Amino acid sequence: MSDREHFLSGGPNNHPACHRTAKSQVDPQSVENFRRKLKYFFMSPCQKYRARGRKPWKMMLQILKIVIITFQLVSFGLSNEMMVTFKEENIIAFKHLFLKNYQDRNQDYALYTRHEVHDHILYIINRYLQLQNLTVDNHAFERIDDVFTPLSICQDLYRHANVLPANETFDIDPHVETGTSSFVIITQLYNLIKCLKVCFAVFVPAELHYQLIVLFDCVVICSCLLSLILCTRSVYNGMLLQFVSLIWPVCWSERMEFINGWYILIIISDTLTIVGSALKICIQSKELTSYDVCSILLGTATMLVWIGVMHYLRFFQKYYILILTLQAALPNVIRFSFCAVMIFLSYCFCGWIVLGPHHENFRSFNMVANCLFSMINGDEIYSTFTKIRDKNDLVWMFSRMYIYTFVPLFTFMILSLFIALITDTYETIKHYQKHGAPLSELQAFIAECKDPPKSGKNIVDEESSTFWCLCAPCVNCT
Amino acid sequence: MSDREHFLSGGPNNHPACHRTAKSQVDPQSVENFRRKLKYFFMSPCQKYRARGRKPWKMMLQILKIVIITFQLVSFGLSNEMMVTFKEENIIAFKHLFLKNYQDRNQDYALYTRHEVHDHILYIINRYLQLQNLTVDNHAFERIDDVFTPLSICQDLYRHANVLPANETFDIDPHVETGTSSFVIITQLYNLIKCLKVCFAVFVPAELHYQLIVLFDCVVICSCLLSLILCTRSVYNGMLLQFVSLIWPVCWSERMEFINGWYILIIISDTLTIVGSALKICIQSKELTSYDVCSILLGTATMLVWIGVMHYLRFFQKYYILILTLQAALPNVIRFSFCAVMIFLSYCFCGWIVLGPHHENFRSFNMVANCLFSMINGDEIYSTFTKIRDKNDLVWMFSRMYIYTFVPLFTFMILSLFIALITDTYETIKHYQKHGAPLSELQAFIAECKDPPKSGKNIVDEESSTFWCLCAPCVNCT
Amino acid sequence: MSDREHFLSGGPNNHPACHRTAKSQVDPQSVENFRRKLKYFFMSPCQKYRARGRKPWKMMLQILKIVIITFQLVSFGLSNEMMVTFKEENIIAFKHLFLKNYQDRNQDYALYTRHEVHDHILYIINRYLQLQNLTVDNHAFERIDDVFTPLSICQDLYRHANVLPANETFDIDPHVETGTSSFVIITQLYNLIKCLKVCFAVFVPAELHYQLIVLFDCVVICSCLLSLILCTRSVYNGMLLQFVSLIWPVCWSERMEFINGWYILIIISDTLTIVGSALKICIQSKELTSYDVCSILLGTATMLVWIGVMHYLRFFQKYYILILTLQAALPNVIRFSFCAVMIFLSYCFCGWIVLGPHHENFRSFNMVANCLFSMINGDEIYSTFTKIRDKNDLVWMFSRMYIYTFVPLFTFMILSLFIALITDTYETIKHYQKHGAPLSELQAFIAECKDPPKSGKNIVDEESSTFWCLCAPCVNCT
Amino acid sequence: MSDREHFLSGGPNNHPACHRTAKSQVDPQSVENFRRKLKYFFMSPCQKYRARGRKPWKMMLQILKIVIITFQLVSFGLSNEMMVTFKEENIIAFKHLFLKNYQDRNQDYALYTRHEVHDHILYIINRYLQLQNLTVDNHAFERIDDVFTPLSICQDLYRHANVLPANETFDIDPHVETGTSSFVIITQLYNLIKCLKVCFAVFVPAELHYQLIVLFDCVVICSCLLSLILCTRSVYNGMLLQFVSLIWPVCWSERMEFINGWYILIIISDTLTIVGSALKICIQSKELTSYDVCSILLGTATMLVWIGVMHYLRFFQKYYILILTLQAALPNVIRFSFCAVMIFLSYCFCGWIVLGPHHENFRSFNMVANCLFSMINGDEIYSTFTKIRDKNDLVWMFSRMYIYTFVPLFTFMILSLFIALITDTYETIKHYQKHGAPLSELQAFIAECKDPPKSGKNIVDEESSTFWCLCAPCVNCT
Repeated sequence: MSDREHFLSGGPNNHPACHRTAKSQVDPQSVENFRRKLKYFFMSPCQKYRARGRKPWKMMLQILKIVIITFQLVSFGLSNEMMVTFKEENIIAFKHLFLKNYQDRNQDYALYTRHEVHDHILYIINRYLQLQNLTVDNHAFERIDDVFTPLSICQDLYRHANVLPANETFDIDPHVETGTSSFVIITQLYNLIKCLKVCFAVFVPAELHYQLIVLFDCVVICSCLLSLILCTRSVYNGMLLQFVSLIWPVCWSERMEFINGWYILIIISDTLTIVGSALKICIQSKELTSYDVCSILLGTATMLVWIGVMHYLRFFQKYYILILTLQAALPNVIRFSFCAVMIFLSYCFCGWIVLGPHHENFRSFNMVANCLFSMINGDEIYSTFTKIRDKNDLVWMFSRMYIYTFVPLFTFMILSLFIALITDTYETIKHYQKHGAPLSELQAFIAECKDPPKSGKNIVDEESSTFWCLCAPCVNCT
Repeated sequence: MSDREHFLSGGPNNHPACHRTAKSQVDPQSVENFRRKLKYFFMSPCQKYRARGRKPWKMMLQILKIVIITFQLVSFGLSNEMMVTFKEENIIAFKHLFLKNYQDRNQDYALYTRHEVHDHILYIINRYLQLQNLTVDNHAFERIDDVFTPLSICQDLYRHANVLPANETFDIDPHVETGTSSFVIITQLYNLIKCLKVCFAVFVPAELHYQLIVLFDCVVICSCLLSLILCTRSVYNGMLLQFVSLIWPVCWSERMEFINGWYILIIISDTLTIVGSALKICIQSKELTSYDVCSILLGTATMLVWIGVMHYLRFFQKYYILILTLQAALPNVIRFSFCAVMIFLSYCFCGWIVLGPHHENFRSFNMVANCLFSMINGDEIYSTFTKIRDKNDLVWMFSRMYIYTFVPLFTFMILSLFIALITDTYETIKHYQKHGAPLSELQAFIAECKDPPKSGKNIVDEESSTFWCLCAPCVNCT
Repeated sequence: MSDREHFLSGGPNNHPACHRTAKSQVDPQSVENFRRKLKYFFMSPCQKYRARGRKPWKMMLQILKIVIITFQLVSFGLSNEMMVTFKEENIIAFKHLFLKNYQDRNQDYALYTRHEVHDHILYIINRYLQLQNLTVDNHAFERIDDVFTPLSICQDLYRHANVLPANETFDIDPHVETGTSSFVIITQLYNLIKCLKVCFAVFVPAELHYQLIVLFDCVVICSCLLSLILCTRSVYNGMLLQFVSLIWPVCWSERMEFINGWYILIIISDTLTIVGSALKICIQSKELTSYDVCSILLGTATMLVWIGVMHYLRFFQKYYILILTLQAALPNVIRFSFCAVMIFLSYCFCGWIVLGPHHENFRSFNMVANCLFSMINGDEIYSTFTKIRDKNDLVWMFSRMYIYTFVPLFTFMILSLFIALITDTYETIKHYQKHGAPLSELQAFIAECKDPPKSGKNIVDEESSTFWCLCAPCVNCT
Repeated sequence: MSDREHFLSGGPNNHPACHRTAKSQVDPQSVENFRRKLKYFFMSPCQKYRARGRKPWKMMLQILKIVIITFQLVSFGLSNEMMVTFKEENIIAFKHLFLKNYQDRNQDYALYTRHEVHDHILYIINRYLQLQNLTVDNHAFERIDDVFTPLSICQDLYRHANVLPANETFDIDPHVETGTSSFVIITQLYNLIKCLKVCFAVFVPAELHYQLIVLFDCVVICSCLLSLILCTRSVYNGMLLQFVSLIWPVCWSERMEFINGWYILIIISDTLTIVGSALKICIQSKELTSYDVCSILLGTATMLVWIGVMHYLRFFQKYYILILTLQAALPNVIRFSFCAVMIFLSYCFCGWIVLGPHHENFRSFNMVANCLFSMINGDEIYSTFTKIRDKNDLVWMFSRMYIYTFVPLFTFMILSLFIALITDTYETIKHYQKHGAPLSELQAFIAECKDPPKSGKNIVDEESSTFWCLCAPCVNCT
C-alpha cells in the first residue's frame, strides 16, 4: 500500500477525534497538483526562490521594516528623553523658587498649622510677583488674549467630613474633591506647584525638522501598509487552501496549520504601527495630545516586529530550538500557572487583609501582589520582614509564618516545577530533532511530493494559479 | 482467575503491612452493590449527575461561596485601607503639631538634656492649649461626662537602674516600666504622641450602610454553615463506607482514602469564616475590638477557600499535575527540610552569638533567621557584607567565612537538591499519567465495576441507600 | 565458593589500588568472632541495645548536650543583646550631648575649618563640665584613685604628609598615627566620642545570678568532657579494630571507614565548648576581656553540635538522603569550585584595578569580591550598574561589558552546572538506595555474619571484650 | 583490516563534509614518524618530560608569570586605592570649605534665584582669599611661573535657548556649551568645585621606590615577552604540523585542533600585559596620563592569565569537567542567547518608549537594559513596581502587564531552558568521560601509535626534528 493510499484510507491519523470517510474518487492528477501547491505554500523563502524564482520580497520588506520602525522609535524616544529631563529640572526649580524652606529630600511638603498655611501662600504670591527680578529672565507669565492670567490655587478636600468627638462619631466621605474656594488643613501644598501652568509647547521643533519627521512617519505607514497587505494575502491564500483541502475532511487542529500565527502577529504589529504613526503625526501637528496612547501603540508594535522577525529563524533548527521549546511548553506552562496563580491570589487576599494595617508593603491589594511577586524572585524579602510596624505579637507571628511558608512554596517548589517542565519539553524537542517528530496528516500528505524545489514543476503561471485557487472549491466539490 | 477473585485472595497488595484473611463467604450480590456504592462515592460531580441525576449542589455552593467570601473580604479590606491612611496622616500631623522641631526623616525623636526635655514638654502643652487657634477646627478635645480630659504623659523607664561609676558597678534591670510620675532621661519623647488619645470611632459608618454590611455577613455565615453541613455529611458518609469495608481488612493508608482531605480543608475554612464573620459583626457593633483576630480568621479562611476550590481541578489531569506533584513531593520535601532546618538553625545560633554585637542584622535571633532566609533567596547579601561595624579583624574574618560558606551551601547545594527532588517527582507523576499508576487495593476493587455511569443501576432510592449504609455494618459482619 | 572464601581470595575489590595476598591460614573461629565484633562496631545504638542490652548512653548524652549548650548560648546571647542595646543608646546620647549640631543621619561628623575645630572642642569641654546639670544624674565622672580623670583627645593623623604645590610634589605616608598633642585638619571629630571612656562594667550581675551562671557553665564543661571521653574512646576502638584488621591488608580508603567522621566532629565541638566555657567564666570574673574569641568558640561549637547530632539520622534512610547526597557531591563540588573560584578571582582582580577608582563597590579587593558574590546571587546588580560615577566613556563601556559577561556566566552557566551536578548525584544515591550500593570489601566481610542482633551471641563480657580488643593485635599478628 | 588501513580508507569519519581520496602511496615509516611527532605534539608537559626529558619550562613560566603579574596588579591597585581615598576626602573638604550651607546628603547643590547665585559666588571668593587662615596649612595656591593662578568659573549653558511664552513657542538646542563669561540659571554650582584645580601630583613616590617599581615592571615585560615567544613558537609548530598533515586532506574543523586556543589566549594576554606595563612606566614617569587605558589593559591581561592557567587542568579530568562542559555548551548557549537577546531588546525598546517619561529606571535605553537585566536576576523588581510616578491609569496598567509578563518569561522560562541546556551538555560530557568520546579522525590516527611515552623512540635530536618539520611539506608533497 503506497503512502498516498495509506493516507487516503485515513492512515497515520494523529487526531483520533477526526472522523472521515475515504474519498477514492478524486482525480489522482489534481491531487498531485494540489499536493505540489501545498508543498510550495509551506516552503521557506529560499526554497520558493529556487522553485519558482520568486524573490523573497516579503522577507526583505520585514527586514527593512524592522530597521525603519526601530529608527522611528529611537528618534521618538530621544526627543522624548530630552523633553522629560527639561520638564523635570524646571519643576525642581519651581519648587525651590515658590515653596518656602523647600528642601530636596524625597519628602512630601507637609504643613499643619493655620498660620503656616497662610504664611506659605503669601510667600508664593510674593515670589510670583517678583519673578522677573528673581531669575535671569527665562520664565515669562502666561498671557491669554493679552491679559496676564492670575495665579490660581488648587485644593483637594474630603467631600464631606463630620467629626463629633463628643459622642465619638466620625464620618468621612472618602471621595476627594478638587475645588478653588476655601483653605485646607490636611493637604499637601506641594500640589500647588503642579497647578502653575508649565507652558511647554511640546514636539514644536524648527519647521524643516518637523516636515522631515512627518515625511519619515509617512514612509513608516506606507511600508507597514504594504507589509499588512502582503501578510493578509498570505493568510487569505492559506485559508483558501484550507477550504480546498476540505475534500479530505481535516480536523480543527490541522486546519490551524494553514494559518501562520507569525503572519497574524505581523498583521497586528502593522496595524498598531499605522495607527500609532498616524497618531504621532496628529500630536506633532498639535491636534491631539494623547501621547501615552501613541507611545503604547508604537512600543508594542516595535516589540512585535522584533519578535515577529524571529520566525525566519525557523529554517535554522539550532537557533529555533528556544522558540520551539517555548511554543511546545506554553500550553503546560499556562495550565501550571493557572494553579500557581490561584495559590498566589489566595496568599494575596490573606496578606492584604491581615497585614495591610500593619505593613507598608501590604497596604493595597496591588501592592501585596507586587511585593509577593518580588519575593518569589528573591527581592524585597528582608525589607518585608523588617517593615512590619507594631510588634503586635499575634500579627507578628502571623507575618513570620506567612513569609516562611510563601517563599519556600514558590521559590523552592513551584519554581522547581517550572524547571522540571521546561527540561522535560526541551528533551522532547531535542528527541524530535534527532529522530524526527511524528508527522501530522497534512505533513504526511505533503511529504509524498518528492520533487526537488528546482524541478521546475512549480513554475506555473501565477495568475492561473491564483485563479485555480479561487475556483478550486467549486471545481472539486461538485 | 478473575480480577475480583484475585483481589479477594489478596492479589495486588501494595501495602505488605496489611495482613488479611480471605473471606470467600460474602454474598456476591451485596459485594457487587457495595462496589457500585463505592464507585459512586468516588465519582466526580459530573459523573454523579449522569449516574443518578444528582445536581452538583455542593460544587455550586463552593463556587458561590468563593465569590461572596472574596467580596466580603474586599469590602472589608477597602474600608480598612481608607481607615489606616486617615489614621496615619493624622499621626504625622500630630507629630508636626506637637513635637518641637520635628522633621519627617524616619528618625527617632531623641532628646538628651534635662533642659530640652522640659522645654519640649512645655511646647507640647502650649500647642495643646492653642489647638483651636492652630488648626482649622477638625480636631476637638475628648470629653468624658462633659469634663475635658487632661493631657497625660506616658513614660518608659528601667525598673531599677543603679550605676556606681566609682567602683565600676553597673546594675540595670532590663525590664521596662510604664509610669506617670517623674521625668525620664533615656527615652524617646516620640512615644508621647502615641499617648494622645486619637479618638477615632472605627468601623461606625452611616446606619443603612452598616445594616447592609451586617446582612451580608449573615449571608456569608449561612452559606458557610450550609457548606459545613454538606462537607461534614460527605466525610461522615466516607467514614461509614470505610466502616463497612472493614469486612475486608484494609490497612491504615487505604482507610485514609475514604476521608477526602479537601473536605477537611473546606470544613476548617468554613469554621474560620463563621467565627470570623461573627466577630466582625461584634466589632462593627462596637462590642469587641479584637480586629487582628478577626482579620486573621477571615484572611486564612479566604486563603483556604481559594485553595480548596482547586480540588475540582482533579478531573482535568493536565491542570492537576502541579497539585499532584506538590502532594507527592511533600513527604520528601518535609524530610529534606528537617535536615536543612537543622543546619539553618545551627548557622542562626552561631551567627547570633558571634556577630550579634557587631552587626545590625544579627542583633536578635529572629533577625538572624530573617537575614539568613533572605540571603538564601538572594536578597540583602551585599548589605550583610557591608553592615558589619567595627573592623575587628577576628570577627570580620569570621563574618566573611560565615557568609561565604552559608550562601553557597544553601543556594547552590540545598536549593539544587530541591530541584532534583521536584524534577524526580514530576517525572514519576508524568510516568504514572502515561502508563497508569499502580492501583491501590481499593481502586482495584472499584475498577471491577464496569457499568458506565449512565447505566441507570446507580439510580436507587436515596433514603434506602442511606439506610443500607447505616445498617451495612450489622448486616454484613454478622 | 562461599562469600567468605571469595572475600579471602580478594573477591569484590572495589579499590584496584589495594594490593593484597591471600591469607588462608587464619583460624576460622577467630575470623568469625572478629566479624561479629566488627558488625557490632558498626551497629546503630538501637541495634546495640538489642544485641547486648547496652543502653545508648552516648546518644542520650549528645541529646542532653544539645539542650544544655543551646540553653547556655541563648542565655549568653540574650544578656549580650541587652548590653549592646544599652551601650548603643548611650553612645547616641553621648553624641547628642557632646557634639555641636549633631544630627542623626548616618553621616560622618565632618569639620573642615580651623575655627570650627576649636569651636567644637570648646563646646565639648563646656558640656563635659556642665554634665551634672545637663542630665538627670545617670552619668558620673570616672575616678581613678579618687582623682577625677581628665578629658583626653584622640587624633588620627598621617605619619608624614608633605605637600609642595609649588613644584607639584605631593608626598603622603599612608600610615595613620594616633597621638594626643596637636590638632588635626582632615579627620573626623566624630572619633572623639569614641574616646570618652564609657565605663560599662559588662557581665557583673547580682551575686547569686552570677554564681548560677558559673555553675551552669561548669555543668556544660563536665558534660562536654564526658562526651569528649566517650567519643575519643569510640575513635580509639575504631583504630584498634582497624589495626587488627590489618591481617587482611586493607587500603587507605577502607581504613577510613573505621574512623567515624561524625565523632571527630563531636570531639572538635566538645573541645571548643570546653575552652569557650572556661573563657566565659574568666570573662565573667573579669580576668579576661576577650569576648570575641569566646563567642566565636561557643558559636562554632554550638553549630557543630547541631550538625553533629544529625548523624543519628543515618538510621532513617529517607531523612538521611540530604546528608548523603551532600557528602557524595562534595568532592565534585570542590573540584568544580576550584575552577569557578579561579574565574571568580580573575574577574575580581580585573574589576578592582579597572573600576576601583570609578565605582564605590569596587574600591578594595574585598569589596569587589563581596559585590561580585552578591551579584551571583541576584543582589546589588542594579546598584552596581548605577553607582559608577564619572561618565568616562571607556570605563563606562568596560563596566557594562564586565557586568553583562560576569552575571550570565555565573548565574546562568556555572549555577546551572551546580544543579546538573547535584541532580546527578541525587539520582545515583537514589539508585543505590533502591538497588543497593556496591558493597565495600569491609561491608562485604561484615555482611557474612547473618546472626540477628538479638541472637545473644554478642553478649560477651565487656571487660574481656575490651581486653581482647587490646590484645588482638599481638595475638593475631604473631 | 588494521586501524591504519581503516583510517587511510577514510574510516571513522566524523565530518561527512570532508571529501578525501585514499593516498596509499605514502611511505609507511614516514607515516609512523609523523604519527609519533603528532602524538608528542599533543602530549601533556608531564608526558613530554617522560618521553624526551624536556623540562616543562613553558608551564613553569606561566606559573611564575601568574605570580608576578598578580603581584604587579596588587601593588598597582593598593597605591591606587590610597590615592582615590585621599582625593575623595579632599573633594569633600573643598565642598565644605567653599560651598555655602553645603550639607553632605547625596544631593545636587541647586540654586535657583539670581541673588543666591551672586551671593554664593561671593562666598566662594571670600573663602578662597581667606584659605590660609581657615585651614591648618595643608593647602597652597597653585603658582605658574611664580604668578598665583586666579580663580576661574566654569559654566554649562544651553547653546541656544529661546522661549516665547506669548505665542507658546519654545526652542532649545539640547547641546550644552561650557563657557566662562555670563551667569547661568539652570545649572549646578556644584560643578564649580570641580574646576578648582586639585593639584595632585599622582604616582610620584620617593625616588628609590619609583625605580624599584619600574624595575619590576620591566621584569614583568620580559617574562611576558618570553612567554609570548614560546607560545607563538608552539602555535607556529602546530601550524607547520597542520601543513604537513595536508597530505591527508583534513577538513576545517580538524585543522583547528592543531591550533591550541589556550595559547592564543596567552598570546593575547601577554601582548596586553606588555603594552599595559609599558604604558604604566610612561605614566609613572609623567609622560602620559591615560591611566584608564593602562588599567583596562593590565586588568584584562591578568584576567586572561588567570583563566589561561586553567588549561593545565585538562590533564585532571575531574577538575576539567567544568571547563569542558562550558566549552561544549558554548555554541548552543550563544544560539539560545541570540533569540533571548532579540526578545530582551524588543522589551527594552517598548519599555523605553512607553515608560520612559513616567519611570526613573526607564529614562534612557541603557537604563532600561540595566533595569531589565537586574530584574531577570531577581534584583530591583519591587523598586521597579513602585517607582512609577503618575498614576496615569493606562500607563500604570501597561507597566503591570509589562513586568508581569517579562519577569516570568525570563526567570521562569528562559532561565529554565539554560539549565536544561547545561544539564544536557553535562550528561553528554560525563557519558564521554565514562564510555569515551567519539574520536575525531586526527585522534584516531594518533591513537594508533602504541608506544608508551617512556619508550625512548621520541628522543630525537631537537634540531633535526625542527628541521624535519620545516622540510616536511616539500619532502612529502613532491
